[in-house]
Amino acid sequence: MSQRREGETALDFDPAELQGDGHIVFIGRVSSPWKSRDECPKNMADARETGKTASLTIDAPYRRGLSGLERYTHVVLLSWFDRSRRDLILQNPRHADTPRGTFSLRSPVRPNPIGMHVAKLVSLDIETGILEIDAIDLLDGTPIIDVKPYFASIDAFPDAAKS
Amino acid sequence: MSQRREGETALDFDPAELQGDGHIVFIGRVSSPWKSRDECPKNMADARETGKTASLTIDAPYRRGLSGLERYTHVVLLSWFDRSRRDLILQNPRHADTPRGTFSLRSPVRPNPIGMHVAKLVSLDIETGILEIDAIDLLDGTPIIDVKPYFASIDAFPDAAKS
Repeated sequence: MSQRREGETALDFDPAELQGDGHIVFIGRVSSPWKSRDECPKNMADARETGKTASLTIDAPYRRGLSGLERYTHVVLLSWFDRSRRDLILQNPRHADTPRGTFSLRSPVRPNPIGMHVAKLVSLDIETGILEIDAIDLLDGTPIIDVKPYFASIDAFPDAAKS
Repeated sequence: MSQRREGETALDFDPAELQGDGHIVFIGRVSSPWKSRDECPKNMADARETGKTASLTIDAPYRRGLSGLERYTHVVLLSWFDRSRRDLILQNPRHADTPRGTFSLRSPVRPNPIGMHVAKLVSLDIETGILEIDAIDLLDGTPIIDVKPYFASIDAFPDAAKS
């Protein structure tokens, strides 16, 4: 876990080794077509371009919590990047010329390895806990830690930009 | 923590009492005008209507990770609702007629008490770790666990709806 590309910088400590300020519980898992990092799309736009759907299976005790979600066209998923290191604070992504701060990237490598993904909800079966979604940029088996309804009124900023 | 409104249902266990599947670390705190639940806006739209800005202070070891974020107009914040119970799976919000599943709500009460907030980035000072944002629907002092750039191409679905 200590390999670095040129220009990458690690914290003086590894958040994975700390006691932590709080704990998370897995509420389900992703089923995706992506079995290796090489084939896994790097973002949701790339994932959509493949045309491949994905699904989540929510664990039995949590399934009642999905009630009412079927009314929404889009959902916010929070995932736990369980196969990512947590100690890099400057990273050198392939698409960038120079090292970039971890919080200016959507990389899975971050102090709290949580992914945020907006997906279209294709179908929802509360009894089996299965949500079918239009695409996902996660490896098969990645844990899910939260599902929320997506609200255009507070979550959609189509004019958001980068200077 | 065991009080319930009519129709609310708890899990058979309390996620707060479990050992957990992973741990999170606080990377900073929110400074907001909201010192009590009664005055705290219930969502980001209400928070914007107040016209009051807010700020985040990122802890010193993590500040380098903000490098590059200044180029983005909007950010995704993940917060840790440290004052919320985690065991309700059906909730009875004031705006609803009947109990709703936790995952169909943006309520802070959820198995993993993580909030997702999209805010406009007003200013960023990497040296002090202070991000000024246009609004926040969080109590003063709430921990921050992640900051990400917001991308219209993958995060903005202005036509998302509720049936």
